[in-house]
Parts: sequence; structure tokens; C-alpha cells
Amino acid sequence: MAALRALGFRIARSGVQPLCRRPPAWGTAAPRLPGLPLAPCRAFSNNKILVELDESSGVATMKFKSPPVNSLSLDFITELCISLEKLENNRECRGVILTSAVPNIFSSGLDITEMCGKSMEHYAEFWRAVQEMWLRLYGSNMVTVAAVNGSSPAGGCLIALSCDYRIMVQNPKFIIGLNEAQLGIVAPFWFKDTFVNTVGHRVAERSLQLGSLHSASEAHKFGLVDELVPEEKLQEKAAAVMAQWLALPDHARQLTKSMMRKAVLDRLVAHREEDIQNFVNFISKESIQKSLRMYMEMLKKKKS
Amino acid sequence: MAALRALGFRIARSGVQPLCRRPPAWGTAAPRLPGLPLAPCRAFSNNKILVELDESSGVATMKFKSPPVNSLSLDFITELCISLEKLENNRECRGVILTSAVPNIFSSGLDITEMCGKSMEHYAEFWRAVQEMWLRLYGSNMVTVAAVNGSSPAGGCLIALSCDYRIMVQNPKFIIGLNEAQLGIVAPFWFKDTFVNTVGHRVAERSLQLGSLHSASEAHKFGLVDELVPEEKLQEKAAAVMAQWLALPDHARQLTKSMMRKAVLDRLVAHREEDIQNFVNFISKESIQKSLRMYMEMLKKKKS
Amino acid sequence: MAALRALGFRIARSGVQPLCRRPPAWGTAAPRLPGLPLAPCRAFSNNKILVELDESSGVATMKFKSPPVNSLSLDFITELCISLEKLENNRECRGVILTSAVPNIFSSGLDITEMCGKSMEHYAEFWRAVQEMWLRLYGSNMVTVAAVNGSSPAGGCLIALSCDYRIMVQNPKFIIGLNEAQLGIVAPFWFKDTFVNTVGHRVAERSLQLGSLHSASEAHKFGLVDELVPEEKLQEKAAAVMAQWLALPDHARQLTKSMMRKAVLDRLVAHREEDIQNFVNFISKESIQKSLRMYMEMLKKKKS
Repeated sequence: MAALRALGFRIARSGVQPLCRRPPAWGTAAPRLPGLPLAPCRAFSNNKILVELDESSGVATMKFKSPPVNSLSLDFITELCISLEKLENNRECRGVILTSAVPNIFSSGLDITEMCGKSMEHYAEFWRAVQEMWLRLYGSNMVTVAAVNGSSPAGGCLIALSCDYRIMVQNPKFIIGLNEAQLGIVAPFWFKDTFVNTVGHRVAERSLQLGSLHSASEAHKFGLVDELVPEEKLQEKAAAVMAQWLALPDHARQLTKSMMRKAVLDRLVAHREEDIQNFVNFISKESIQKSLRMYMEMLKKKKS
Repeated sequence: MAALRALGFRIARSGVQPLCRRPPAWGTAAPRLPGLPLAPCRAFSNNKILVELDESSGVATMKFKSPPVNSLSLDFITELCISLEKLENNRECRGVILTSAVPNIFSSGLDITEMCGKSMEHYAEFWRAVQEMWLRLYGSNMVTVAAVNGSSPAGGCLIALSCDYRIMVQNPKFIIGLNEAQLGIVAPFWFKDTFVNTVGHRVAERSLQLGSLHSASEAHKFGLVDELVPEEKLQEKAAAVMAQWLALPDHARQLTKSMMRKAVLDRLVAHREEDIQNFVNFISKESIQKSLRMYMEMLKKKKS
Repeated sequence: MAALRALGFRIARSGVQPLCRRPPAWGTAAPRLPGLPLAPCRAFSNNKILVELDESSGVATMKFKSPPVNSLSLDFITELCISLEKLENNRECRGVILTSAVPNIFSSGLDITEMCGKSMEHYAEFWRAVQEMWLRLYGSNMVTVAAVNGSSPAGGCLIALSCDYRIMVQNPKFIIGLNEAQLGIVAPFWFKDTFVNTVGHRVAERSLQLGSLHSASEAHKFGLVDELVPEEKLQEKAAAVMAQWLALPDHARQLTKSMMRKAVLDRLVAHREEDIQNFVNFISKESIQKSLRMYMEMLKKKKS
């Protein structure tokens, strides 16, 4: 736990809490103590996310491999947080590319089964993990590039929005957006803040109210993604963008990033418990539970 | 008055004040009490605004018919507020389309005769009504679509800006913008906030300082209007857009809208009396009165 | 000093401090006392900036003539502040065009020699002058047009950003941007605020983190400059834009400008001493001093 505590201290300014909720699952990586040499750390595999670190470039790749749709379950999110923490804490790693190992989907967003028919305690635990994921990703000191190689609704879109740069495969079937309103739920204020910071107030207002899922082309047009590429060029392009960002001195780039994002990060940190309470109260309403059950039924029928 | 008080309570969160200033003019519509059946409410006509509700779609149309230019007099504004309140309070109504029954003009904006040569009390009453109109429209729970079928300067532009979506007729003669500076007056901060939320800070800064009136094409280019259509397609397009917005669950859409607009609405609510005082002090200055008299003379000469 | 004190009082609302730090260098211009006739003020020349006032139009031109690159030394900045103060205080002057008399460069930004190998006191004095320059320019009551006839990195870009309108010569060699991150330093929050107000949050975030220097075309595309012209049309265009802005009544335009910029100006005024302290602490770090020395070495080698 020493590494976690050290990290918790290191990034305390952004209010990210140490991940003490559950013990780390990957075992034996040496904790990084000030002054002690680091144990070599090349790659570590988990259940749902494959992390590879290229030590020559200092760039890690996180591949979401939780079929069928990389949905953000509590387990997935916990793994994502721990992986981010590990990389953030590894001096060899300066940037991370987030992409999917599942065809046609980047991530389908928050796992509805975590929000349906569970206890209040479970909802609270789940929501705290979702917050944690965003605080770590949006506030990361590393360069973060989303290589969006599939559809990316709701929480999947949030992951992309939280990176420094978004490259999307130009495939007319791939969609992206914060479509919460379509499900009868409301994107939390910090999803909204992240969205507004990316596409501006008006586009966000319209897109959030309509729960729009945009084609890659449309998303590119108003800046929800920064660049479109053919699928076969995605990794190459992501590496090139990463190299461009890594050419800057880390310290100046990190302080600049923090200056741009701090107000929005601080806002969630200041209202974190209240936001959990709001989520729990909202999601446990019978009317919302009913909507979610209907939505899940619909998804099941679609599948079969 | 029970209906008004009930409404005042219902929307108290957005700080809109009950309309007790003057008794409603349209007479006998049954107040809606919790648990009591609603009296049927199809359409109600006033002097200056024609309101039609299509009960099958839940969409009302408000047609401004105050020739020659639909100027926003105290009477017009009061009628607009009461009409909005009535619709807001009517469960059958989920959306409203605002348009003009006067050719070539949507609305010419605030009626200058209300701001010129009147008492301080009158200025204060007038300004409170203007605030009320904006609070009700920008904060409406209904879907609001502006079908801008004519020019729309100053306060007319504010009405359009306060809706959820703006469709404008593509006619090179029709102009839209917040041109207050041209008249030697200053758009209040909440006009500015609404404008910034729509077109961004830079476009707003330039357009407000120059008091620009933009052609429909130009307005569309930087997002002051969302869509341009030929005049004969306007109503059809407005209905289609409305249907698209009404396809969303009301509750989620309303909460999302409130999340996007609350900060700006709250700002006026918090500074309402101060804003009235500022307006009264400013408008009653002899130099401003002189500007307005000259402007009115100019308008009269133009007409004759 | 009476004129300075009078001015200090007049613009106290925006928190600009009177320029008492050093006595004005240009000598005998009559102080403007309320009720007394103004001494005629046509033009005044300094060492580094040439100021010409066309009394018929009320438009002054400030030409930066500090070869080789119009770098913003303490002397240059002090002259700029005093020139602005003089014009601001001159009723005959309503607008100012800022341009360069040095070929191919508008301004290269803050003079690195002022930030390298000097005393803490010097750093503090320098930074206070930089703040002062921005407060006076961004908060100016005059119409300010930047006629950018050369490259304009860092502090040079800030000067352009602080004007009401930016016209840039369409020359593929001319670049503009806030490239501080490239030098390992961080643009202060009020550079960032000015940038965000101009190009929006997302463009600013990306451009600041990458320390991007944009071609004129690119800068125009995302609104960092408002217009591109061939070099030979620049002065004509600047005059035409100025005439357009001066067609508005001063009072309304000034109040509108203040409404748009006040929040950001106030933020620096409220944190001015803290910002100086931050700068001094940051710049006097050995690691930063080392970066700056290396950068200066590189510049010297380039030259020879």
C-alpha cells in the first residue's frame, strides 16, 4: 500500500483519493519509494484491460478487452484506475494511448447492470469508482490519447473526452456522444463540464438535451474528436500524435494542462459526496429503475 | 390566482416570480389544482399574441401579431409571460413554437416608447417585465423553438436566443442581432450571458461592441441560428424539429436543460433588483433620453 | 504627476495602478486637469515606440521600432504603458492601431534577458510591468486594433490578443501563438484567460499545451486572428476596421467592452501580488534559469 499512499500524496492537489478500497490485483510490482530504484515494469495484464509499456518511447497502450462491448463495470473501472495509477507512478511512462481490443466498440459506457436492482451501497461504491476514473484520467499528468476504434456512447465518450487528444476511425457505423437523456437519465455535471470544455456551451446544450449520438464525421466537425483516420492508420497516427505531445517538456505541459482543467476537476472534488448522494437517490427511484429494466430488456431482445 | 401561486411555487427553483402584478386578462380558464381534472384548454387569444395548442402533438404555437413590428411593449410582454405560464402549467402542452404573424418581422425588440419620457416607476415596472419574460422563456421546461420569419433585432433576438432551437427564413433582407450599442445603450449582462452561451465569448464580444445586425446567412455561420430554410418550409421544419426534441423523455431533457442554463438564470435572480435599479438610472439619464428621442424621430421620418 | 493621478483615479475601477514607478520620459505634455484646455498633442516619440495621432480621425498609431525583434524589455513595456496612458488620457484620441516598424516581426514577446540572471527584485519589477501592460491594453477604453505585420510569439501574441480586433498579414512565414510551453515555462493564468476568451477552451487547451506557433492561415481558421490581408493592404484595412468601430457611440461601446472583459481583468487585479510572487519563485528556480540560458545560447548561435 505504500506506493498507493505515496501516489495519493503526490496527486493530492487534484483531490484524487488513494485506491485503498480494494487491494491491487496484479500482485508483486515493487512499490516506488523515494530514492529506491524502480523494479523493471514492462507490461502487466489484468482481466479486462491489456497494458503494454514501450520503454523506449515511454508510451503505454491500454487496450480494453472486455467483450462483448467493453462496458464499464465496477471491475473494469477499478482495473482502469489501478492501471492508470501504476503508469502515473512509473517514471518510465510519459504517455498512454487508450484503445479497444474489441471490434467495432471503444466502450459502450457505464454497465447498466451495476445501476439496476442493486443496493444503495452498491450504487454509491459504483459511482465513487466512476468519479475516480474521471478524476484520474482528466487530471492525468501523462499525455493521454484516445484512439477511438469503435462506437463510444455515454461513459465511453467520457473516457475519450477526458484524454488530451481524440483520434477516431472514419467508419460511418461508429458513433459517439453523451446519450444519457435518451435513456431517461441525466449526465452528471462533470460529464457536462468536460463536454463543454471540449465542444463549447451551445453544442453541448443541444447534444446533451437530445442525447445525440454523432457519426465520426459529425463529431469531427464540431470538435468532439480532433482527427479522423482510416482504421489501418489509427495506431500509427496515435503514435505520431503522442510523439508530438511528448516533444514538450513534461513539467511545463503538465502545469499548463492542470491550469486548463483544474477548475472543473476541483468542482467535482468539492461536491463529490453530494454527487454520489444525488446519483444514488436518482438511480434508486422506481421510475428510473423501471426505465433501465426496460432498456435492458430491449438490449437482450436485440441480441437474440 | 391559485393557479399562479401554484405555478410560482412549482418553478420557484428558477426564481421566476408569480405574475401577480396584474390580474390575468383572458378570464375564465380553470385553475389547475392538484388532483382536480383540468378544464379543456385548446386555444386562447389575446390582443397581441395568438396561441394555438395542438392537443394531439402537445405542441403550442405562439404567433406574435402586434403590427407594425411586434415591438415588446409592456402589454405585449405581459401577455407573453401569461401565455407562457398558462402553457407551462398545462400538462397537455410539452413544447411551444414562437413565430410571427406580421410579415417580414419577428420582433423589433423592446418598445422604445416604454423607455422614453416615462416615470422612474414605469421604467422599473417595464424592466421587471422584460426580466420576467427572459426568466420564463430561457428557463422554460417546455421545448421552445423559434421560427424566425422576419427581422429580429435587440429584444427580438433575445427571444430567439432564449429558445432551445432557432430556425430562420433564408431571406437576404432579414437581419438578427443584439444591436443595442448602435442606439447608445448597453445590452444587460443577462442578454450578454445568453448570447455568449449561444455563440461563444469572442463572437459575442465583437458583435455586441459593434451592435451588429447579421444577415440570416451570417447568423447561421457562427451559430446564432441553428438552421436556415425557405419561408414556405418554416412551419414544417419547426414541427419536425419539435418532434425530434419531444422524442426525448421530458424529465431527463428538462433536468439537462436546467443544468446547462441554471448558472446564468441564477445570476439574474440574484441581482434582479440591482439590475432594475441600474436600468432605471441609466435610461433616465438626460443624455440617454436624448439619444432615444433622436432615434424615435429618425424612425418616424423613415416611416413617413 | 497630476495627470497620472487623475488617470489612476479615472480608471481605478479596472484596478490599473498609476504609473508612478518611474517618471514619464517624454517631458512636457501638459497634464489634463478637469476644466482646463488641453495642450495640443499631435505626436510624441520615444526610444522604442513611435506614436502618431491623426487628430482628424482621432486614431493613433503605435509603431514598435525596437530592432531586431521588438522584444518586450522592461523599457519597452514601460514606454508602451506610458504611451497608452497618454492616449487614453487624451480626449482627441478614440482608437489606436498597434503595428510594427521592424520588418517580419510584430513582437518576439517578453525579453528573456529580463528573466535570466537578474535579482528577485528585478523579476518582480519586470512582471508587474507585464501585468500593467496587459491591464491597460485589455481594459483600454479606446478601440484597439492589432495590425500584425510579422511573427508574434508569446508576449507578442498576448498584445494582439488584448486588442479588440486582429488583422494579420497573409505571409506563410509569419507565425503567432502562445508558445511558452516550448520554452519549458507556463503562460500565466491571465494569458490563458485572454486566449480562452478569444479562441475557446478546447483550442486554447491544445495550443497552450503544445506551445503551438500557428501560421497566419491556421490562426485565422480558429479565430486567433480576425482577418488576413496582403501586406500592402494592412494599413488601409486597419483604418477601415477602426472607422467601423469608431462609428459606434463611445460610451455604449466602452461599457459593453468592460462587461465582456471585466471578469478576467478583475481576476488578475485580485491576485496580482500572488501572481508576481509565483512568477518570481518560478523563474528564479535553477532548472528554469538553466532552460532559459540554453535557449538564449541557441538564439545566439542561430544569429551568428
